[in-house]
Amino acid sequence: MLAISVQSPNHLEAREVAAPGAPEVGEVLLRTVRAGICGSDLHILHGSNPFARYPRVIGHEFAGIIEAVGAGVEGLAPGNHVVVDPVVSCGHCYACRVGRSNVCGNLEVFGVHRDGGFRDRLLVPAINCVKVPDSMPFEVAALAEPFSIAANVLSRTGISAGDTVLIYGAGTVGLTVLQVAKLHGARCLIADIDAARLEWARNFGADVTIHSREQSVPEIVKDENEGLGPTVIIDGAGIPALLEEACRIASPAGRIGLLGFSPAPCNISQQEIVKKELTLVGSRLNRKFLPQVVSWLAEGKLSPAAMITQTFAAREARTAFDLIETRPQDTIKVQLAFGE
Amino acid sequence: MLAISVQSPNHLEAREVAAPGAPEVGEVLLRTVRAGICGSDLHILHGSNPFARYPRVIGHEFAGIIEAVGAGVEGLAPGNHVVVDPVVSCGHCYACRVGRSNVCGNLEVFGVHRDGGFRDRLLVPAINCVKVPDSMPFEVAALAEPFSIAANVLSRTGISAGDTVLIYGAGTVGLTVLQVAKLHGARCLIADIDAARLEWARNFGADVTIHSREQSVPEIVKDENEGLGPTVIIDGAGIPALLEEACRIASPAGRIGLLGFSPAPCNISQQEIVKKELTLVGSRLNRKFLPQVVSWLAEGKLSPAAMITQTFAAREARTAFDLIETRPQDTIKVQLAFGE
Repeated sequence: MLAISVQSPNHLEAREVAAPGAPEVGEVLLRTVRAGICGSDLHILHGSNPFARYPRVIGHEFAGIIEAVGAGVEGLAPGNHVVVDPVVSCGHCYACRVGRSNVCGNLEVFGVHRDGGFRDRLLVPAINCVKVPDSMPFEVAALAEPFSIAANVLSRTGISAGDTVLIYGAGTVGLTVLQVAKLHGARCLIADIDAARLEWARNFGADVTIHSREQSVPEIVKDENEGLGPTVIIDGAGIPALLEEACRIASPAGRIGLLGFSPAPCNISQQEIVKKELTLVGSRLNRKFLPQVVSWLAEGKLSPAAMITQTFAAREARTAFDLIETRPQDTIKVQLAFGE
Repeated sequence: MLAISVQSPNHLEAREVAAPGAPEVGEVLLRTVRAGICGSDLHILHGSNPFARYPRVIGHEFAGIIEAVGAGVEGLAPGNHVVVDPVVSCGHCYACRVGRSNVCGNLEVFGVHRDGGFRDRLLVPAINCVKVPDSMPFEVAALAEPFSIAANVLSRTGISAGDTVLIYGAGTVGLTVLQVAKLHGARCLIADIDAARLEWARNFGADVTIHSREQSVPEIVKDENEGLGPTVIIDGAGIPALLEEACRIASPAGRIGLLGFSPAPCNISQQEIVKKELTLVGSRLNRKFLPQVVSWLAEGKLSPAAMITQTFAAREARTAFDLIETRPQDTIKVQLAFGE
């Protein structure tokens, strides 16, 4: 069977590998149907993900069909359509005990710490499988994980209809955050350096788009929220230097969500944070949000189809990665089709 | 009557001023009995408080007796003993609407934005007065405000018996945070460069004291919380450079509370914040915590008396300030007695 593996940094291979055995206790055998490529897969490819070890079958956004279930598995059966939560946690450390399983002290993530979903079949803990309706296309189900990233960061910051949200970056992260924030009724402003991405953002419901090469973000947001500024700011661009600006323009009692893994130091002024009682939160992966996202998708509250800009046969993964790297402005979410 | 005023930076005066008139609608006339000196009063004296305007009667930790009440005042009467919450908020801006009145967009603080409590008598909004039992000494009542600072920052970070708290600095802020954290049942470690302060911290219930000139804080805390590190870290020292270390040694899902007003930039790595989903919170003044603190004081759950190291007649304010500046290691809380 086929597996997409990063053998070592910068060496992506579509390989033939042995099929997995029968599922053990608590496991299911999954046949992957559709999987999405994430920016973090590119980081693993380029050796810049601090957690990956090689060789590694990548892929943590994947949906498929259960082919077999191991002993003790309840509520799942062969034939069920599922999307996989890639976060495997221990359940007993401090983070797990306080409901923060996504930063478990013994964390393992599919496609990062252990082999992932870019392969025809794999064994998955049943507890990580979230059933989706048979009527939901697999390409939509495979988007539940990227939308869970948005749900997680907005859960960390808090989000309600009373919020004014500024999103830096109209890439995949920014556009999913936009949709989840709009679903909560918030007013949304989004900034990017690319006009085409801002056009997408308008289509996904942005109230204000800011071309940040031509317009000043602080100038445009300063009259928001009765002159106090945005109440929630999400760095969907992963640029450390933006944090200083974010602290400066945020409203009193504002919350700032960070998702980037850059080790670069950034400068902030604690005076801004204390004066306005800002809250800065890191957000990583997701804290069991896939069932919520699947509900939103099933109820038509998000616009997933428009997120998928290209689909390639899994065997053409190299071409898919090349497209994302050479023409990023033309892609939101690129997916791989397995079993074809 | 007497007022302690900073006429301009570095000019503290004990002045005779006119007594206030009768209370207007919603106001009370307060006779100040006891008031505490805070580090921020010294910042106003030295011109380093970014919010103060001069001349300014300082003082925001004060308790006394109501002498008269204006029209429309309910629940307060002449003779009542009260402590004053120095935070005056508008009640209608974004911050007030979401319950964060202490970062109100139109904030005024007694002794900072408007004349404060270091005077024999003043008019105070009735809504800012919190009744204390007649049996509570005024010197204890006047400590409710500094303890509310601790209650506020620990409310911002969250605090429970499952937490392991590291406190930087065993000054007034650190020692009040220690007591409020212990009241919640948390395990507490506290670091300072002064052995005498650490001795105080042990008396106030610290589980571990760290002499940070002789011992490595990261080394000592690394085995805490089953090897994950402290779950809550409070910078009670107001040293921006500590934040980088705090992010590094905090547990996954850890929370870091900041209270300092230094404008100095500090370097942090967003990778640490995102990897562990840290939460960094600013804490300023207090969000209506005085009633809670007064209850704790009345129930004997805090150790206020031991916090008061010296008391001076208000007219000797200059001597009191000199003591704090020249022998800080000998003081926790210095108070002024009015009406003597």
